[in-house]
Parts: sequence; structure tokens; C-alpha cells
Amino acid sequence: MIVTLAGGVGAARFLEGVVKVVAPGDVVAIVNTGDDITLHGLYISPDLDIVTYTLAGIIEETNGWGVRGDTTNTLEMLKKLGADTWFLLGDRDMATHIRRTELLRGGATLTEVADQVRRALGVATRVLPMCDQPVGTFIRTPDGLIHFEHYLVQRHAQDQVLGVHFKGAESARPANGVLEAIREADTILIAPSNPIVSVGTILAVPGIRAALEATAAPVVAISPIVGGAAIKGPAAPLMQALGYEVSARGVAACYAGLADLLVIDNVDAALADDIRATGMEVVITDTIMRGPAEKRALAQAAIAAARELRIEH
Amino acid sequence: MIVTLAGGVGAARFLEGVVKVVAPGDVVAIVNTGDDITLHGLYISPDLDIVTYTLAGIIEETNGWGVRGDTTNTLEMLKKLGADTWFLLGDRDMATHIRRTELLRGGATLTEVADQVRRALGVATRVLPMCDQPVGTFIRTPDGLIHFEHYLVQRHAQDQVLGVHFKGAESARPANGVLEAIREADTILIAPSNPIVSVGTILAVPGIRAALEATAAPVVAISPIVGGAAIKGPAAPLMQALGYEVSARGVAACYAGLADLLVIDNVDAALADDIRATGMEVVITDTIMRGPAEKRALAQAAIAAARELRIEH
Repeated sequence: MIVTLAGGVGAARFLEGVVKVVAPGDVVAIVNTGDDITLHGLYISPDLDIVTYTLAGIIEETNGWGVRGDTTNTLEMLKKLGADTWFLLGDRDMATHIRRTELLRGGATLTEVADQVRRALGVATRVLPMCDQPVGTFIRTPDGLIHFEHYLVQRHAQDQVLGVHFKGAESARPANGVLEAIREADTILIAPSNPIVSVGTILAVPGIRAALEATAAPVVAISPIVGGAAIKGPAAPLMQALGYEVSARGVAACYAGLADLLVIDNVDAALADDIRATGMEVVITDTIMRGPAEKRALAQAAIAAARELRIEH
Repeated sequence: MIVTLAGGVGAARFLEGVVKVVAPGDVVAIVNTGDDITLHGLYISPDLDIVTYTLAGIIEETNGWGVRGDTTNTLEMLKKLGADTWFLLGDRDMATHIRRTELLRGGATLTEVADQVRRALGVATRVLPMCDQPVGTFIRTPDGLIHFEHYLVQRHAQDQVLGVHFKGAESARPANGVLEAIREADTILIAPSNPIVSVGTILAVPGIRAALEATAAPVVAISPIVGGAAIKGPAAPLMQALGYEVSARGVAACYAGLADLLVIDNVDAALADDIRATGMEVVITDTIMRGPAEKRALAQAAIAAARELRIEH
């Protein structure tokens, strides 16, 4: 069984590859919920939805989020009614938020809702939120703490980043099934997600890092930084703010003591020796997922690397 | 100033005529909220929305409810996610329910929300819910009490009606502005709505009937029963169940002691003398609102009748 720590778009695309290489039912995604936000009174969980929609084959592929071919009539009417509609939500996507909010208010856990949604959409891979308690990723800026979605979507990641705060993380507990999955997994993959505000958030939930450190299963991470820049999203300013170099070397530093192996891109081959010098193994391959073939090949490379680690140790 | 007691479709069409005859800002609609229902965790107020959308010019005219040209992508996705979607809700319409629910949860009253919505949609006529407290219209059937929307929409008004129960009405209070509007009005119109579960519900809110009985302003009702049948909706079985004849004469009986005058259709001219014998005045005209001209003419007839009553007394 393969456990993948997942953020949003990069992780979802990587998972698409993983479930082509192994049976989808043998994969568990543990998903960042630090980006979750309540808008229009509806509980929105961007990464859970991105992962679920992608695995369900209904994702809007160009953006990597939202439902393919969705309309925005509800949002336009909300705007007419005076709502602040800075966060784009399609009509079909809105249904997920409505349904989730109703079930949560009725007493269901986020884990239960995520499971209902992925089953309803025909996703065989288990999609687990990192926790059921609200954790909010906030960016520390000269203007104060700003919720990650405000920072990213509303303010276009333009604020100077002074730090990151995972509000509520200290009192969160791994969601039902998370620690069990990590314990039972023969392979742990850290998807090419933001190491600070996607994977870092998951690791901030007490118990998850310790479980990963305790497992005998190899932990293989894929660098989301290629050629000194993030493939997508604001990883660069966030890594910089926390004192990490924006490079595959910096990603290795983020995962020091946690990952046994880092998959880096061909263009970063020159950094392999530096990373190996820290005690982390390295696989060099093409990590840019342009289409299904590349997603599958990257998953294959990561899974093969994990298998070799298991044989070695 | 004209106050109109309003249910849904019939009232909304009549109000369209009223605001062509007098300045829209001089009209106040007091609207039935007994049909209100929470679905998918969203607070839905069918009659408030029908009246508001109609006066805003965005109503789907064929049905008389919903937003013209609306899509149903949210509802279809809700169905896919396992929700029970027996109540049709369009995407633009959904925005109203989302917005209302958010504002109500934030502490706003239904009156405040209704006012925000009608202003946002450019409606100059004040649209007041009858009360801010939840009142539920339930139909007493051999299967027990059934919420009006379940009875009408889900069960197609097929149950035998044994009675009507306005749950919560006894502890409701007229919404802010309702009694003031009745006191200040020079004309009270009772729209051609269901006398039992639209107007009857409004009258069940303690204080409203008394205010209507106390006012010196003429009270003019329009019969929703033409030729022994309801123009729209389940008025017939409900009137019958409560012992009223399904006729303009039965409508007059519903409004005995309340309405000074009943506007009845030409086809019911033969009933005029019976109604007059009860002490209620009668105006006979064409009451079927096929289009704008008929709506306007009916409103004109009702307003003119009220004016004559004021001169007489």
C-alpha cells in the first residue's frame, strides 16, 4: 500500500500517475487542509477537492482546480447580491461545498465527508484529510497574518513573506486512518507539492511526522522545485522566507531527517552530489508532468526508487 | 401607500400590475413564509423569492418561480453527491439561498435579508416576510403532518387533506415594519393567493389580523378561485378540507370580517349577490392575468375599488 502526502495541483497530477502504476485502491492520499476556508458560509477544502476531482477525471485540467466545463452562474448571482466573490467557484464545484457544509453541520467529520464525496465520484483511492480539526495556514506579512487563500488568490502572492503560521495545528489530531495508513504503507511518497504550506502543514499535525519517522517504509519525495523555480504556486517566496534555498537542494533541506530519497529533475542533476552528501539518496529524471505519459513515468520512477530502497535496507 | 398580502406566483403577478398603476416605492408586500424550508443546509423562502424575482423582472415566467434561463448544474452535482434533489433549484436561485443562509447565520433577520436581496435586485417595492421566526405550514394527512413543500412538490398534492397546521405561528411576531405598514396604508390588497396556506398563514401570525381589522383603510381581496377552480396551486383541496366551498363564495367566507370587498371574475358574476348578502362588496371583472395588460387592469380595478370604498365611508 502506498501513502502519498498531497497538496493540491502538483500532488493531484502526480497521483494520477501513481494510480496508473499501482491499483488505485492500494493508494491512500493524505491531504493538506490548511488552505480550507469558509466563504459564503460554505466550507471549502481546495486540496481535498483538487485531489478528488483529478482522480475522478472531472478536473478542469488547464487550471488544475475546479470542475471541467463548469459554469459560474451561482457566483455571478452571489456577486449581484452583494457577496465578495474574489474566490472563483463554479456551479458544480459549489455543490461539493454545499453538500460538505450540510454534512459537517449535521455532525459528520471532514474525513467522512471526503470519503462520501470521493466514493460518489467513483474514486477508488482513499482521500484522507490530514485532520478533522480546523487548521488554517496563515502567511505572516508586513500587513499581519493573512490566510493562505487570501494571500495566494486575492492578493496574488504579492505580499512580502515573513513567516508561516499553522493556526490550530498544535491542537489538531491526525484524521481517522492517517496514522494507520502510514503504519501499514510499504511506500511513502511525498508528492511534488509546496514543502512549506502543503507538506509542511501536514507535518505540523502532531503525530504525523513521528509516524513517518518511525515507519520502516521508504520515504520518497519528489522535488517541486525545478531549475530554481516552482513548477506552480508560491513555493519560492515561502521557502526563501523560511531560510531555504529555492532549489532541489533547498527541498532536500526541508525534508532532512524525513525523506530517504529525493527525486529531482534532469536540469538539477548538478545538485545531486550536494544532496547525497546530506545522506539523502537521489534519483534524477524528468519531473515535469506535461501529460499522462510523464505523470505515469514520474510515478513509476518514484515507486521503483522506493522498491530499491526496500531491497537495499 | 398600498399594502399587499402575498403568497407566491399569483401574488407576484398581481404585484407586477400594482407597481404599474402606482409608484413601486409606494407598495409594500407582506409575504407568506410558511412555505420556507431548509434543503441542503440552505434556507429557502419560496414566496419571498417569487415575489422578489418577479418584481425584479428576472422570474422564469412560464413556471412563475425560479430565475429566467437558469441552469441546474449545482443541483445535478448535488444529486451525484448523494443529496435528495426533489426540489428544483437553479444555479442563480441557489445563490439567493446561499447568501440568505450566510446572512441569517451571521445574525441578520429574515426581514433584513429580504430587504438586502430586493435592493440588490433593484426592486423598489418593500418586500417584508410576515415574521422573522420560523413558521412551517404543514398539511394534516392520513400519513401525518407533511410540510407544505413536501405535500405540493414532492407528493404532487395527492394526499388527502385533513387539515392545516401552522407550526410555530402562535409564537411568531409580525416582522419589523409589518404592523407599521398596515397602520400607514391607505389601501390593503389581498392578492389572488391561496386563502388557506398563503394568506391564511400570514393571518395566523398573532397581531396581523387584528391590525387589519383595526385599520380604517379599505381591505380589497381578489379571488384566486375562478369558475370553481384554483387558477394555480392546491387551493381547492385545502379549502374543501377546511369546509369552504371551492368558489368565489368560499373565498368570501375565508375573508369574512376582514375584507370589505372581493374582486371576482366575470365567470362568477352569478355569485355576486350571495357574497353581497354577507355584507361584502363585490367588483366583477376579468381576473385571469394572461399578460401585462391584464395584470395592470386587475390591479387598477382593485385599487379603484379601494378608492371608492374610501370615498363612501
